[in-house]
Amino acid sequence: MNLTATESTHLDLLTPRGPADSADPCQTLLALGEEAMAQRQYERAYDLFSSAARFDAGAHRFRREINRAVRALVPRWHFGMMNDAERNQAYAKAIQQVVGEDHLVLDIGTGAGLLSLLAARSGASRVVTCEAVDVVASTAREIVKQNGYADVVTVVSSLSTDLRVGVDLPRRADVLVTEIFDCALLGEFVVPALAHARRELLTPDAVILPRSGRLFAQFVESPELHSLNHVGEVDGFDFRPFASLTSLEYFSTTLSNYRHRPLTEPVEIFRFDFAQDIEPTTHHMDITPRESGSAHAVVMWFELDLAEGVTLSNSPSDTGSHWKQAIQTLPEPWRLEKDSPLGFRAAHDGQRVLVGPAHAVPHTRVR
Amino acid sequence: MNLTATESTHLDLLTPRGPADSADPCQTLLALGEEAMAQRQYERAYDLFSSAARFDAGAHRFRREINRAVRALVPRWHFGMMNDAERNQAYAKAIQQVVGEDHLVLDIGTGAGLLSLLAARSGASRVVTCEAVDVVASTAREIVKQNGYADVVTVVSSLSTDLRVGVDLPRRADVLVTEIFDCALLGEFVVPALAHARRELLTPDAVILPRSGRLFAQFVESPELHSLNHVGEVDGFDFRPFASLTSLEYFSTTLSNYRHRPLTEPVEIFRFDFAQDIEPTTHHMDITPRESGSAHAVVMWFELDLAEGVTLSNSPSDTGSHWKQAIQTLPEPWRLEKDSPLGFRAAHDGQRVLVGPAHAVPHTRVR
Repeated sequence: MNLTATESTHLDLLTPRGPADSADPCQTLLALGEEAMAQRQYERAYDLFSSAARFDAGAHRFRREINRAVRALVPRWHFGMMNDAERNQAYAKAIQQVVGEDHLVLDIGTGAGLLSLLAARSGASRVVTCEAVDVVASTAREIVKQNGYADVVTVVSSLSTDLRVGVDLPRRADVLVTEIFDCALLGEFVVPALAHARRELLTPDAVILPRSGRLFAQFVESPELHSLNHVGEVDGFDFRPFASLTSLEYFSTTLSNYRHRPLTEPVEIFRFDFAQDIEPTTHHMDITPRESGSAHAVVMWFELDLAEGVTLSNSPSDTGSHWKQAIQTLPEPWRLEKDSPLGFRAAHDGQRVLVGPAHAVPHTRVR
Repeated sequence: MNLTATESTHLDLLTPRGPADSADPCQTLLALGEEAMAQRQYERAYDLFSSAARFDAGAHRFRREINRAVRALVPRWHFGMMNDAERNQAYAKAIQQVVGEDHLVLDIGTGAGLLSLLAARSGASRVVTCEAVDVVASTAREIVKQNGYADVVTVVSSLSTDLRVGVDLPRRADVLVTEIFDCALLGEFVVPALAHARRELLTPDAVILPRSGRLFAQFVESPELHSLNHVGEVDGFDFRPFASLTSLEYFSTTLSNYRHRPLTEPVEIFRFDFAQDIEPTTHHMDITPRESGSAHAVVMWFELDLAEGVTLSNSPSDTGSHWKQAIQTLPEPWRLEKDSPLGFRAAHDGQRVLVGPAHAVPHTRVR
């Protein structure tokens, strides 16, 4: 790789420009692109900036704009994910176990293409994979080609729910591999994606990888975590009206970066069998605190069962995982007493998970 | 506060719903809101969901949708920021020093309203503040009212560059207070905001708080930081085409959460005087590494001079700060030798900052 060329391009990004010339068609494309960025139409902005760059003599003139659109379209976690050896090795092992010759494999959520490449290397006769973000899909196509699997792996630029057998897939697929899991499993629409795939895209006895997933929860005392999502008095002023802007649901952060004290043992709140329909559910559960204290937050994480003997987790002790934990703060700290059992409820609607004290949710329908 | 009511509302969010009724106008508003969410029109989605909630008998029926729109509009860092005692106390001290009776104060970037409230408490006769996000502006209005300053502080829901003297401000302001600083100072458009304010909204001798800011940079060896933004080989596959999707500019993360080794002393790369025009600049600088190693990233942070004797920083050693550090990874690690001076360049275009090896940027215009 030519370091000088790479770096030169890089720093040229901030070379001051001359005044805008309205007769320059590139300036028009640039202005339209900026407008699209302001309206959060990042795909459109990317296309407009790329057109300007193609049109322009200085190929790198619009690279800073293109990169801004790219940053809005491709979250930084893609890199942490690709470099997560624990995840990659688990999927490699499971795919090798499950995918064989003559298999038609469907991979939902291409990313850079790792799962598809692993399936191809494992002998699949054909792999069809879909990716919702165009610029990621086209990059995956390059990676597939670069690694010599262009005749096996087809990257379709769409949501899985827009795929059609006879159009995108030659027939129903024998194996589904997917890794569209956020830190609490369901947040990236895996439930509707799987329901659609089982109905429309897979053979009746298709193998689904991962097979199942479990979600765990643990109550912790941590004013630090609470302060990430709540505010009370600030410098003598009452800021409580800002409570209307707190996140009611979990957000993702690394538990070990915050002072905290676990008050309960981890408890399994849901087990999802990916070969079955997953319906909205509310559980009532009992818990016996191992410590007394104020619960400020519930920490959640998953354990995926990829295939026989292959699991993958983002538990707080898995420090190698690129996944963070799911943290749901409780609006008011919940007082727990050691050895004194309390009920709580865990609910999900197929995408979002919520946990809270049971005494306070009399009207929640329990299934 | 009624814990039961709060919690009940909270968990009700995930109570399973009946099937959609297309004759129900709330369902229409809900569907339009979902469409707006998918198009990243979060303000519109918020308004549509809120209309549905007002229209509906069960006031909390659409609270989960409203909260999703809120989460997209109000980044979580607002809470960390409001709870950042170091920041709050520094601004309180500086504002008390600068703002006096008869002052008309302009506060750019209201947030929850702290700076405006501090100015009012310090005796300002009038405070006008602007906030670009509607739902944050209306929350700030509530907070101002709740704290008894509604007759002093006016919250305008707009960008500062849309404010007009005679319309939003009774006259040019005597003092400008602002805290629209990201981890590398310029990322939240403070330069164009200040240029506009000095030209259109402030008296010629207006006090600007903060007075100035300095930006520091330090080269570090850290494969961990590099892996947040780069990928090479993964499980035997070549993933380098994904390099087109790396962030060329800095992103924000907490340095201390990653293994790293500083190779150079921190060096001041820019000093911004906020009472003067700030023009795009490229500096050439020399640096003498204190250690040999591979520089994977440049870490940047600021020090703000708020007023006489009051500073505020997000240096890696300020662990109380809610600001993280600005991390810019280098596309290729840069080999540094102890005690062997090397040149590098630092550039900014009034919003973004870039740092890199100087030998590789022969065409960058040096001012």
